[in-house]
Amino acid sequence: MPPLLAAAARQQGDRLPVWFMRQAGRALPEYHRARDGVGMLEACARPDLVTEITLQPVRRYGVDGAVVYSDIVVPLRAVGVDLDLVPGTGPVIADPIRDRAGLDRLRPLDPASVDFIAEAIRQLVAELGEQTPVIGFAGAPFTLASYLVEGGPSRDYARTKALMLADPQLWDDLCSRLADIAAEFLAVQIGAGARIVQLFDSWAGSLAPADYRQQVQPHSARVLSRVRELGVPSIHFGVGTGELLPAMAEAGPDVVGADWRVPLAEASRRIGPDHAVQGNLDPALLTAPWPVLADRVRDVIRSGAQAPGHIFNLGHGVPPTTDPDVLTRIVELVHTEGPALRAEVAR
Amino acid sequence: MPPLLAAAARQQGDRLPVWFMRQAGRALPEYHRARDGVGMLEACARPDLVTEITLQPVRRYGVDGAVVYSDIVVPLRAVGVDLDLVPGTGPVIADPIRDRAGLDRLRPLDPASVDFIAEAIRQLVAELGEQTPVIGFAGAPFTLASYLVEGGPSRDYARTKALMLADPQLWDDLCSRLADIAAEFLAVQIGAGARIVQLFDSWAGSLAPADYRQQVQPHSARVLSRVRELGVPSIHFGVGTGELLPAMAEAGPDVVGADWRVPLAEASRRIGPDHAVQGNLDPALLTAPWPVLADRVRDVIRSGAQAPGHIFNLGHGVPPTTDPDVLTRIVELVHTEGPALRAEVAR
Repeated sequence: MPPLLAAAARQQGDRLPVWFMRQAGRALPEYHRARDGVGMLEACARPDLVTEITLQPVRRYGVDGAVVYSDIVVPLRAVGVDLDLVPGTGPVIADPIRDRAGLDRLRPLDPASVDFIAEAIRQLVAELGEQTPVIGFAGAPFTLASYLVEGGPSRDYARTKALMLADPQLWDDLCSRLADIAAEFLAVQIGAGARIVQLFDSWAGSLAPADYRQQVQPHSARVLSRVRELGVPSIHFGVGTGELLPAMAEAGPDVVGADWRVPLAEASRRIGPDHAVQGNLDPALLTAPWPVLADRVRDVIRSGAQAPGHIFNLGHGVPPTTDPDVLTRIVELVHTEGPALRAEVAR
Repeated sequence: MPPLLAAAARQQGDRLPVWFMRQAGRALPEYHRARDGVGMLEACARPDLVTEITLQPVRRYGVDGAVVYSDIVVPLRAVGVDLDLVPGTGPVIADPIRDRAGLDRLRPLDPASVDFIAEAIRQLVAELGEQTPVIGFAGAPFTLASYLVEGGPSRDYARTKALMLADPQLWDDLCSRLADIAAEFLAVQIGAGARIVQLFDSWAGSLAPADYRQQVQPHSARVLSRVRELGVPSIHFGVGTGELLPAMAEAGPDVVGADWRVPLAEASRRIGPDHAVQGNLDPALLTAPWPVLADRVRDVIRSGAQAPGHIFNLGHGVPPTTDPDVLTRIVELVHTEGPALRAEVAR
């Protein structure tokens, strides 16, 4: 079994798989060359470009998984939401959804409308060896809803939270529809050959645990249960989710990702023995001097060794200003020192 | 003893004191009238304005404490840092501190240079009754350092963290100097009559627990120990600090504030029986319909009743768009229903 899948299945030996969220993209000079003159959403819709950009970090870093180059808003655009990815800002939605009329515009995802990602994944599977699975992904209902309701990125998600509390039925209907869209988007990727998927609930960490459990977790659980039916393991991740980890684990993923705020050993304690962990080096440390950074990588490995399975990753996406050589060194370190460090802890 | 001080001293009856971070300021129409044509930093330096603006929320809401109208960058400006508060952005530092030469420009705080705040507090003590103490405050070394190093607000504190790891000696010297400045600023406020103070480490929640404990907590502890020597209780607060709560409590405050991500009962469990808690209604919920919001207020009261002392507050500052009438209703609810709700839990 490829190391990434073995870790997800909690059948991990000492081998420690590693990949990076946002490994395909702005930190790589070859990415900028490949995308020259092509808008990001346009690039996501061109199978040859998606394939090339997805492969770039695999070639360069030797990571254990190839996360498909896409964006969580891609399926929203495919169902007709008028949106743009504004550099330096993020997704901007032309007509935010704040009432039932807005919700009614949100139609189900037609698999044919995202065939470009299926085509890219088929190409990727042909290119990549058996040992390097394609990682599919989608945004979870809350995070997608937050963009649709706020109209773009937000600091406090006040409109989203207000809608959730003021009109629980509308909120429920919105999230149900988004759960279907996310599940369908993952099903397309799995059907084309993705062997593991990540469900990003990037901003769920802004919620109080009781709100998360009541109004968000059931919708994420529906997406993850659909993935499970398709026989593929899943990873569930958000930023600042320390208090939500038990509920995120109960939503049913195989692996729970955590950011750097919670040591992985503690994350594992919170989610219990039935889930592997993923993470969680602070991406803000990537500019630190190498010996210091290397020690932090080792700390993450030691902490992760206390979980029943560990996929090494950052605690959030690769910052665009990252020196790619630093990521290369991290992958080397994880692969060369990982086994001994993990064995030490197990002893 | 005033209810606020009784709660801080864990000698609380059923009476539940309440105040709001940033209660003095942009949510109030009378604030905009008072400040008409006066820049914020200029307003902070005019005792009569500080007094008036500090009193406004006490008059309107009937809160149990009068937090002095100021900003955590006020003492930095007083020691000669060239900075401005840019509306919609926050503090902007003309020459960020990133090396020893930068650090050397940071001189100790001369109490005379912040006499305006002392004068305002003397006026406030004369105006306010015995039951409504003046709350002084300062920024903690990490949060002050983050502004100085980044040059302004930041999403990831990458430069700050890199400096902390790359040059621990410089970091230590910077934070020591900032601890002295913060302690002196609090001493001035206490000398003038502030009967409780809050040390804001607003952005410490961006740190991994190990980094916080090693490189940040000792400096905050020095500030809090200076406050203790002056015989005044202290509150210590940051956003997203769930994992840091034990270390923040060990830094030595009487009260630990938490944001809405951690239920207060759980926060209390983490910090132990020797500290009261403060918080923690999500400010993003202030736009929710009143019956829903009122239930959340009650939940916070019930959860806080499980701690040895509780000061009701939001989990972060009042958003500028808040309808002040909502805060009035919250204060009423806390005062009228608080005792019965607390008694229920104690039973």
